[in-house]
Amino acid sequence: MSSCLYEGKAKRIYSTDDPDRFRIAYKDEATAFDGEKKAQIEGKGKLNNEISCLIFARLKEAGVTSHWVKRLSETEQLVERVEIIPLEVVVRNIAAGSLVRHLGFEKGRVLNSPIFEWYYKDDDLGDPLINEDHIRELGVASKQQCEQMRTQAIQVNQVLKEIFLSMGITLVDFKLEFGLNSEGKIVLADEISPDTCRLWDKETNEPFDKDLFRFQLGDLQTGYEEIYYRLQGGKQ
Amino acid sequence: MSSCLYEGKAKRIYSTDDPDRFRIAYKDEATAFDGEKKAQIEGKGKLNNEISCLIFARLKEAGVTSHWVKRLSETEQLVERVEIIPLEVVVRNIAAGSLVRHLGFEKGRVLNSPIFEWYYKDDDLGDPLINEDHIRELGVASKQQCEQMRTQAIQVNQVLKEIFLSMGITLVDFKLEFGLNSEGKIVLADEISPDTCRLWDKETNEPFDKDLFRFQLGDLQTGYEEIYYRLQGGKQ
Repeated sequence: MSSCLYEGKAKRIYSTDDPDRFRIAYKDEATAFDGEKKAQIEGKGKLNNEISCLIFARLKEAGVTSHWVKRLSETEQLVERVEIIPLEVVVRNIAAGSLVRHLGFEKGRVLNSPIFEWYYKDDDLGDPLINEDHIRELGVASKQQCEQMRTQAIQVNQVLKEIFLSMGITLVDFKLEFGLNSEGKIVLADEISPDTCRLWDKETNEPFDKDLFRFQLGDLQTGYEEIYYRLQGGKQ
Repeated sequence: MSSCLYEGKAKRIYSTDDPDRFRIAYKDEATAFDGEKKAQIEGKGKLNNEISCLIFARLKEAGVTSHWVKRLSETEQLVERVEIIPLEVVVRNIAAGSLVRHLGFEKGRVLNSPIFEWYYKDDDLGDPLINEDHIRELGVASKQQCEQMRTQAIQVNQVLKEIFLSMGITLVDFKLEFGLNSEGKIVLADEISPDTCRLWDKETNEPFDKDLFRFQLGDLQTGYEEIYYRLQGGKQ
């Protein structure tokens, strides 16, 4: 007994027999630029699920909890039921993307310290950059909850940077989402994958992430497979 | 002996015999939308200079210092020499402008507490909204300087809100700029006028500010004259 509660661009969320658990099924759809660019890429759902499971497991080992409970199949994982807070938390170590487009930074500039950004998750508004005063007025999170998300995001950055560095990969930036569990506690949620991280080869700065698809820089599947291979301990 | 050091959209800055003083001459030019809309409006320079002088004087009485030294003529004022920090500090009490366009707030919504925003003054980039992490990485102000600007802006908001309220006017939002004086101290600078504030009639919400020009809502000169008249103690 399970019904689809939500279908997003890249995932479907299903209820389970346990009211405190959801099942997430990853789809093969790739989207970019707020869904303006779309494609079906065979094997993408599997790769994102497997990578996300491995990353959440590694974070857990490092003491960073999340909604992730366990891998269920190639394309599915079991997670804690949370209500997603409509914020995207972005952490940046290297200038890329909107930092280049909107602030004129040179792509690849190593930032003096990580830049932390809040975006309001609202497709109609184009997910605008906001600050904590806007968040308070929007009523989506309290000051204390913002502080908790910020602290966790910085912790995730530390752990992920080390994981990827040991694989010969630079963590350029990444997006996190958080949710509230049944006890009202802030929990790291959504996915962590090459859909939500910019990952560059440490030596050549070639991307392994969704920019391959966004800007037709190469084959997305090959990039994602390389990340999956290295995360499993595969040699570079 | 004085030479024009800088010509902006609405003002010219001249050197004076005193190396620590500048003379500002207000022009009759009105611009909006990053200079895309332009017009010469006779008397605008005088009105902005007179209003700005009156406001800086009132702020001074209330203990808020600025670069303003004294009125020199109908269109000119003497100010302390500062190096402008390329940031625009916006404080909002009521939703209007970009809060409506980018965040979907209803125009006129009374905010639970003031919203504070930083914009990076860069015409080529379109003066983007930024946060304090961006400011630090851009190298335009330190954390401590940001704190000082924020504290002063909140203080200015308190004083201006009361001044305008006593004139039957709602202070919707306003923009401030700050500079560094010769001792490296943060000083409130630029101008405070209906070019930089949204001012609505307390009863009818009709604008007295640059939105008259921006959106062809009425005669700019009449609105600015009313502000000038009331600031001098004229009856509503």
